[in-house]
Amino acid sequence: MGSSITYDCRPEFENLIFIEGLPGVGNVGKIAADFISYKLNSKRLASIVSSDLPAQVFVDENSCVYSANNELWYVKDVNGHDIIFLEGEFQGLTPQGQYEICRYIFDRIIQYDPKMIITLGGYGLGEVVEHPRVIGAVNDSRLKSEFEKDGVTFIAGEPQGGIVGAAALFLTFANEYDIDAACLMGETSGFIVDHKSASCVVDVLCRFLGIELDTSEMQDDIKQVEQINQEVQAMAETNPEDLSYFR
Amino acid sequence: MGSSITYDCRPEFENLIFIEGLPGVGNVGKIAADFISYKLNSKRLASIVSSDLPAQVFVDENSCVYSANNELWYVKDVNGHDIIFLEGEFQGLTPQGQYEICRYIFDRIIQYDPKMIITLGGYGLGEVVEHPRVIGAVNDSRLKSEFEKDGVTFIAGEPQGGIVGAAALFLTFANEYDIDAACLMGETSGFIVDHKSASCVVDVLCRFLGIELDTSEMQDDIKQVEQINQEVQAMAETNPEDLSYFR
Amino acid sequence: MGSSITYDCRPEFENLIFIEGLPGVGNVGKIAADFISYKLNSKRLASIVSSDLPAQVFVDENSCVYSANNELWYVKDVNGHDIIFLEGEFQGLTPQGQYEICRYIFDRIIQYDPKMIITLGGYGLGEVVEHPRVIGAVNDSRLKSEFEKDGVTFIAGEPQGGIVGAAALFLTFANEYDIDAACLMGETSGFIVDHKSASCVVDVLCRFLGIELDTSEMQDDIKQVEQINQEVQAMAETNPEDLSYFR
Amino acid sequence: MGSSITYDCRPEFENLIFIEGLPGVGNVGKIAADFISYKLNSKRLASIVSSDLPAQVFVDENSCVYSANNELWYVKDVNGHDIIFLEGEFQGLTPQGQYEICRYIFDRIIQYDPKMIITLGGYGLGEVVEHPRVIGAVNDSRLKSEFEKDGVTFIAGEPQGGIVGAAALFLTFANEYDIDAACLMGETSGFIVDHKSASCVVDVLCRFLGIELDTSEMQDDIKQVEQINQEVQAMAETNPEDLSYFR
Repeated sequence: MGSSITYDCRPEFENLIFIEGLPGVGNVGKIAADFISYKLNSKRLASIVSSDLPAQVFVDENSCVYSANNELWYVKDVNGHDIIFLEGEFQGLTPQGQYEICRYIFDRIIQYDPKMIITLGGYGLGEVVEHPRVIGAVNDSRLKSEFEKDGVTFIAGEPQGGIVGAAALFLTFANEYDIDAACLMGETSGFIVDHKSASCVVDVLCRFLGIELDTSEMQDDIKQVEQINQEVQAMAETNPEDLSYFR
Repeated sequence: MGSSITYDCRPEFENLIFIEGLPGVGNVGKIAADFISYKLNSKRLASIVSSDLPAQVFVDENSCVYSANNELWYVKDVNGHDIIFLEGEFQGLTPQGQYEICRYIFDRIIQYDPKMIITLGGYGLGEVVEHPRVIGAVNDSRLKSEFEKDGVTFIAGEPQGGIVGAAALFLTFANEYDIDAACLMGETSGFIVDHKSASCVVDVLCRFLGIELDTSEMQDDIKQVEQINQEVQAMAETNPEDLSYFR
Repeated sequence: MGSSITYDCRPEFENLIFIEGLPGVGNVGKIAADFISYKLNSKRLASIVSSDLPAQVFVDENSCVYSANNELWYVKDVNGHDIIFLEGEFQGLTPQGQYEICRYIFDRIIQYDPKMIITLGGYGLGEVVEHPRVIGAVNDSRLKSEFEKDGVTFIAGEPQGGIVGAAALFLTFANEYDIDAACLMGETSGFIVDHKSASCVVDVLCRFLGIELDTSEMQDDIKQVEQINQEVQAMAETNPEDLSYFR
Repeated sequence: MGSSITYDCRPEFENLIFIEGLPGVGNVGKIAADFISYKLNSKRLASIVSSDLPAQVFVDENSCVYSANNELWYVKDVNGHDIIFLEGEFQGLTPQGQYEICRYIFDRIIQYDPKMIITLGGYGLGEVVEHPRVIGAVNDSRLKSEFEKDGVTFIAGEPQGGIVGAAALFLTFANEYDIDAACLMGETSGFIVDHKSASCVVDVLCRFLGIELDTSEMQDDIKQVEQINQEVQAMAETNPEDLSYFR
């Protein structure tokens, strides 16, 4: 059992921000992290394979295989901060597996002395959200004002069910090492892969990082989400029980 | 896989008593341990995170996260004894996980040369208990008379189904190292979180430790338990099958 | 995760035979091993606790706890052979756990340079067996003649479903180290705890070890088995479908 | 937990090709690997036991036991290449177990500096295939032309569901070490053990290795497959729902 990391390169990092964006509710965190990473022309730092990811490879259009792995991507000097993104198609198969993989990755990230850890996710409301907010949770209340300036909403005790998976574990590990950490969650119905909610997380993160990104490439996906949301909303108003498919 | 401990401080301990109070039947052991620990103004010694606890954080009223961890709290010189309490919201997710976490913790406690290990729990009877007794089990029959003086009842072969989870494992580990150990179980219906049963365990433990604690803060919870018990009892007498919800 | 062994004593062993008698089909192997161990006045060598055994203790008539462990018991110089018995109330909770525990134990037994490994079990036939045979399997066909002399029956390819659990694993490990090994299985219906089948295994083992044991203490249990078997047999002849309870 | 390897011999290897042929869809890969290994008079290199294989032994016609293990078999100098085959009756019991065993084996194979890793499997189509093709996936598109010459078909993005188990994991590990790797999958209905599909994989592999093997020993099995396929095909045309047994 265990995990292995293979590095593509071994750069130094300064003033590092670590951003976790693995799949989760509405894939909000994954879409946001992948998009920012892509727009900032990040480079791959490393790939991680693990006994706790699916024992699976996928085949691309060239009949070449790629693994069900997790990957670290990095970009240097974004307004004085280096950033490492954790990206992937899967989280660990079990809670134990999620811990194993996240711990393995965190133990490597800690060597770069990260100044801030941000985990991304969706906050599933079970109903259509027209104007999704980005809800925040932090590991030190001192951090709230800064994120509030960037548009994050803090609601006492929310999410009530807590935060689970990689988004939770990196906060737990950050606490161990007294590293500032926050979880940013885009509100979403939780019914669909939600690019609209993700774009709100992107907006907030860009403000936090002090950058502007052209999000026009997300617009088609956002429009599609809005259309599905309208249909779901109409369904909810006429035949609420038809929503059981989504729940 | 595995566990990590982060110490808040590193005091020395003398004449140590280790008290396990993790969640279980009726949460009797947890309530009792938390209450005594709180009333004795214990300080946190360390927090333990583990792959076998839920991969989860919770959010408090300040939007600050706290982890699904286990914690050690300590108090010095209670009638000549230092005490370490094991507290938490969760036990390990699986029997294997319970072993992993308890072993990890025990291996650290053993370094303090504990003189006595006490595990707390509830003894679920499946029916309302008006005057809960505290049932005991020990790892050396020599220990019975002392606990009997403090109000513990010993019944041959009880609990018939044995003792499970953390309350059992620390007894097993104590046997390995020839450390005196006992499990104290408050009788409870097992239907509800039982502060009344817990208060009986508190009473017994206070006598054992030679201390008096003001339990007035538990009275409201105890009264609520008594009221629910009366309702359940009435239900049992008129429509026994309605109890199936609890069983 | 893992296992721990605690030794009661550290004798030397010569010309060692290791006999595994953990619970299994009809508890045939366990009953046989426990009985011979008891009649030979064996002493406890060590106890093994493991994350893969139930996280449980049991309470005896003195309110003293004993763990869900595995134990090694030994006897010296039985016709020139020292014997270690593996006894216990449980096998590992999962196939992986069975491997973990058996490997852990085997790695300690191998240090005593065992000359022969014998695993005991029941061979469940799904119907009442009036005169149970003891079926054998070996890891070297050279061993068959010796066991045949002692009353063991070898049937090509039987048991068809193979042998599972501890009885299988010690044969696998014996193969790794080129140690002579055999599995002796008493035929049994598999419906009940079968002292009669166990007594046949005892007979065979006594002949193999060149000893005679007074089995009068087993007679009451054997008679009870015979009576139940008669009832089951009658049931099978009149209402075969009533047997579904046992199957 | 873990695995153990026992070597029968310790030859050196040059210009090594590693071929994985464990059980899978239609057992196509297993049949092909076992057949080529057998026809090339391979010798056993090592056997691997693992906590993640069934805790089981089987009994042969001589009442001798053999374990549920994995085995490495080798042959020297096949047109300038040494070959090691991975053979066995089982893959790991869980995805985590498959990773554990394959990693354990790969870590030993990597010491021989393999030049090519080939994993074999079946590509289940859910319907009868009269003329099964051998579908390929590679870890470098440069490899496609060579396999195409040998009769392998590459289809963009196929298999759509990816490749799972040992056949996938060795590709993942090959990527880590930049070793050329391919997966060859014989098309099969997936309903039956498919010697016909396996024979197509054998044909392709023989061309790749530049050898000719007498496959007459497979003909009886192939004819049986063809007959069953005809029956299944007839069933599919008359009563498609009768196929549910296979699906």
